[in-house]
Parts: sequence; C-alpha cells; structure tokens
Amino acid sequence: MKRSPSKKRPHPRDIAVLDTIDAMRRYVKGMRGKRRIIGFVPTMGALHEGHASLVRAARKECDIVIVSIFVNPAQFAPNEDISKYPRTFEHDRALLETIGAHAVFYPSARMMYPSGFATAVSVDSLSSMLCGMSRPTHFRGVATVVAKLFIIVAPDKAYFGEKDFQQAAIISRMTEDLNIPVTVRACPIVREPDGLAMSSRNVYLSPTERKDAVLLYRSLITARKTYREGVRDPARLKDSMKTVLAEGKSLKLDYIEFVDPVTLAPHTRADNRTRMIMAVYCGKTRLIDNMRLA
Amino acid sequence: MKRSPSKKRPHPRDIAVLDTIDAMRRYVKGMRGKRRIIGFVPTMGALHEGHASLVRAARKECDIVIVSIFVNPAQFAPNEDISKYPRTFEHDRALLETIGAHAVFYPSARMMYPSGFATAVSVDSLSSMLCGMSRPTHFRGVATVVAKLFIIVAPDKAYFGEKDFQQAAIISRMTEDLNIPVTVRACPIVREPDGLAMSSRNVYLSPTERKDAVLLYRSLITARKTYREGVRDPARLKDSMKTVLAEGKSLKLDYIEFVDPVTLAPHTRADNRTRMIMAVYCGKTRLIDNMRLA
Repeated sequence: MKRSPSKKRPHPRDIAVLDTIDAMRRYVKGMRGKRRIIGFVPTMGALHEGHASLVRAARKECDIVIVSIFVNPAQFAPNEDISKYPRTFEHDRALLETIGAHAVFYPSARMMYPSGFATAVSVDSLSSMLCGMSRPTHFRGVATVVAKLFIIVAPDKAYFGEKDFQQAAIISRMTEDLNIPVTVRACPIVREPDGLAMSSRNVYLSPTERKDAVLLYRSLITARKTYREGVRDPARLKDSMKTVLAEGKSLKLDYIEFVDPVTLAPHTRADNRTRMIMAVYCGKTRLIDNMRLA
Repeated sequence: MKRSPSKKRPHPRDIAVLDTIDAMRRYVKGMRGKRRIIGFVPTMGALHEGHASLVRAARKECDIVIVSIFVNPAQFAPNEDISKYPRTFEHDRALLETIGAHAVFYPSARMMYPSGFATAVSVDSLSSMLCGMSRPTHFRGVATVVAKLFIIVAPDKAYFGEKDFQQAAIISRMTEDLNIPVTVRACPIVREPDGLAMSSRNVYLSPTERKDAVLLYRSLITARKTYREGVRDPARLKDSMKTVLAEGKSLKLDYIEFVDPVTLAPHTRADNRTRMIMAVYCGKTRLIDNMRLA
C-alpha cells in the first residue's frame, strides 16, 4: 500500500516537543542507544538569530540538537517581572523546525521546582561582581537550572552565547566543578546590522531607545580603537566609552569592567586577553554587551 | 599451560582501587555496558560495622558495590581539625574485600577540588537548623561532595546511614531537586551491644567518656517510654532525656529536637512519625544520635 505523500513532511520536519522530565529522559536514552552525539541549547524562548546561531553550531558538531525553552523563575528577582518576559512558543517551535533542531524540552515551572524544592547551586566567586552586583540572586538561579538541565538532558555538548559572558564563565566553572560530563561551548555574539547585540529584551525598546542602544557597541569599538592607539589604563579606556554612551539620552550606565576572561577578576592593566564587559540601562531595559579588547 | 593456583584468590577477592576520576568513570562505563546495577556507599573511611551494613544492603540490591573513601575538606570548618580525622585505608580496603565490595573510589583532595574550584551545592532550608547551628558550612560541604560523587560514579542506588539523619534528609532532597537519577536509601543505625551508635569518632573517647556516651541511646529509649506512657509535649519528653544525660559528667548537650522526618521542621506535638534528633559533646568529641519516637 502506498503512503499518501501528504503524510511526508521532509522539510521543515516535525520537531519533538517533550514537556515532561521523564519524556525528555526517554528521548535521550533512545538517542544514546543509537550512539547519537547530543548537542543542547538551553534558552528562555523568545528566540532570535543569536539562539539560531547556537543551534547551527550544535548541528555542525552533533547528530541531535535539543533546545530547552524554560523561563526560569529562579533567576528573576522579586522586583523583576517574570510575567512580562516575552513568551513566543509557537514562533520558537516553527523557527527551531526550520533551522533543524530535533527536539524541544519545554517543562513547566512546577515540574522543575516542585513543592518543597530547596537546593541551590552557586559559584560565588564569579557571581557577586559585574551583573551580580545589581542582580544578587540571578546567577544562583542560572547555575541551579543549568545543572538540573544538564543532568536531565545529559548532552555531550552544550552551547551558550557569549553575550552573557559572565553567565558563560559561571556555567563553565560549575560544569567542571561538579564533574558534569558536558563540554560547554561559548559562541560569538550575534549582532543586528548596526551592531546592537541580539537579545530577547530588545523588543522592550522604544524607537528612541533602540537608536541609543547601538551606543553600547560603539563604545566597545571605541575602547578597542583607543587600546590600539596604545592606551593600557582601564580607567582611560572606560572614559573613552563613557564619552560615547553620553550621546544616548535614554542610557544610564550600570557598569563597565575590564576583566580576565576566565576568573572575571579586574585587570589593572589592559592586555590582549582583557574582556570588556558592560551593562547599561536603556530606559527601563537593562542591556548587556561585551567584547575582547583585541 | 596451567595457571598457578596461587594466582587465584577467590575470597577475599581483589578489590579494584580507583584513585582518579577518569579511572572511576571508565570502570562504571564498563559495568554499565554489561548492564550491571550499581550500588554506591560514600564514606570518609575509618570504616566500622555501620559502613559494613550499608555495603551489605547494597549487595542485596545491586550487582556491583562501589565504596568511596574521601575525607572531604569542604565539610570541615577551619576550627575542626581534618588532619586528626582517623585514616585507616589498608584496614578499610581489607574490610571491604572481606564483605564483598567490588571497587573503592579513593580520589585525592586536589583532584576533587582543583585550583579555582568555586561551586557549592546547598539545601539551605534543611541545613541551618540542628547540626547546622554549630556547623554552619558543614552540610554545604556534604551536599557539594555528594553531588560530585553521584555525577562521577553515576550509581543506580546510594546508601547512607540514618545515624546522620539530617545529612540523609539533605542528600535525599538535593538528589531529587537536581534530578540526579540515583535512588537514595537511608539505612538503620548500627549500634554497639550497649546501644552506642557506631561512629568513626568513637575512637576519640576516653574510657570514662565511652561509658557516658551510652547515655545518648538511653535518653532516646527513655523518651520513647515516656511517649508510650502518653506524654505528647516535646518539652516534657526532652526533659526526660536531659535527666538521663545529666548522669554523664563528661556530657554537654548541644541540642535535642523533635522534628518531622522529611522537612526537619520542629513538631509542637509529638506523634508516631516524630524523629528525635540530638547532638551531645562527650568531652571534646561531638556525638550525634536519633530515633523514631514510636
């Protein structure tokens, strides 16, 4: 008997949506049985080209790409409105199908944090500075949920964007420290044509704010140029950035730091390894960006 | 060619000693390939009949029993002398061979906590009370090392003694919260003929202290008897225990609490589920014990 051609959907193919921890484990167990190399991209949804680049990087190195979509309550502080975080599941699923992800892990908050949940994973020495100053419990929430996801999904490799550079450093450290057998890959920032780092939070920006937002990128480029001209003093390099940021009336600086890319410790003299990391309020939206100095 | 009979050592057979994380993972991978059910008993060495009972429980339910011996620096406070903790590796290995354990994981502190190590696992709501009052960082160190060991050894089942009841509750909670696929078994306390709970720390006791130490057990039995006579007020039950403890001149009470066996929250009215938990200084040695009220 011939199968109806309408039943075939070679491209975009159906993506498996797994909305329980047990279903996710069964799926992975099946793939492991077939000796598939598993890549994993944890996200909070509201997917954009930055996430897509992570899925593509995973497809290059792995047989199976699993993407989690979970707006993690543990990484929002009480004053941060998790209910306003953009949720676009149908759009996300369609995008993931188009770019060739194989499965979506889409658990509920109740499933990830059942009644009585009491455990936290923290990487204190990397979490208290930089973004941890204004978001003291944020990275504890991130490290905890990523540890859980790594243990549930048990991928071979996991892909994070360098846009949240501190987050990537914390996750690398946590994974190594807890002996979780996952290779963590930090992938380059994907930018809009004008240089603004892609972020799910960019949808919050008004047209004026969106114009100002590009100044984060421009300030990083300016510091790079100043460095190339021979300036090594972080304070002077920061000043060159602040001058650029001052052009944006909707901008309010949270911090700029020049740090070691692994320990995140401040550099007192800039060198080629130095990472510039910054956070700026653009209206009410907090934007982050970073760049290697050279 | 005949093999020399002297090469055969059927019982006690050689136990595998794995002193690196990689060697441990390879051993487990090999056993998994043969579909062996793996049981795990984490210890700090100085093994006694309490540990032996855990190995026996593991042998009943599993094909392979792995015992870790690691005096975990993270669970000792600066004022607690880790260098004095009893270390008896050759004795431990011989005992484990005799009772039929298959492998010992015996890593160094440098391997478990390499330079730059920065991660902690904590179960705050269960860790601050009871023994956490006098040892504020202790359970954080325990939860961290057990998470690491569970991830490295990846056993099916793990066995803990109920002697450290709070520890067993914390490890159960942590394992469930982090979705670690290990079944945690809490096994009954093993006691000396006179009732003293077995502990590696009992070797520290002078003959007089050893005599006094049995009063912990006797006080628990007394509270049980008082409860059976109809007393439900924890304060009165505690008083009956304190009267017994007062007979020991070397004893100094740290705490007695009557708690829920899962949440460790205090019971204001005792019932059959109530767990009595206590810690008492016996000379300079801190002893713990606990018992179900009924």
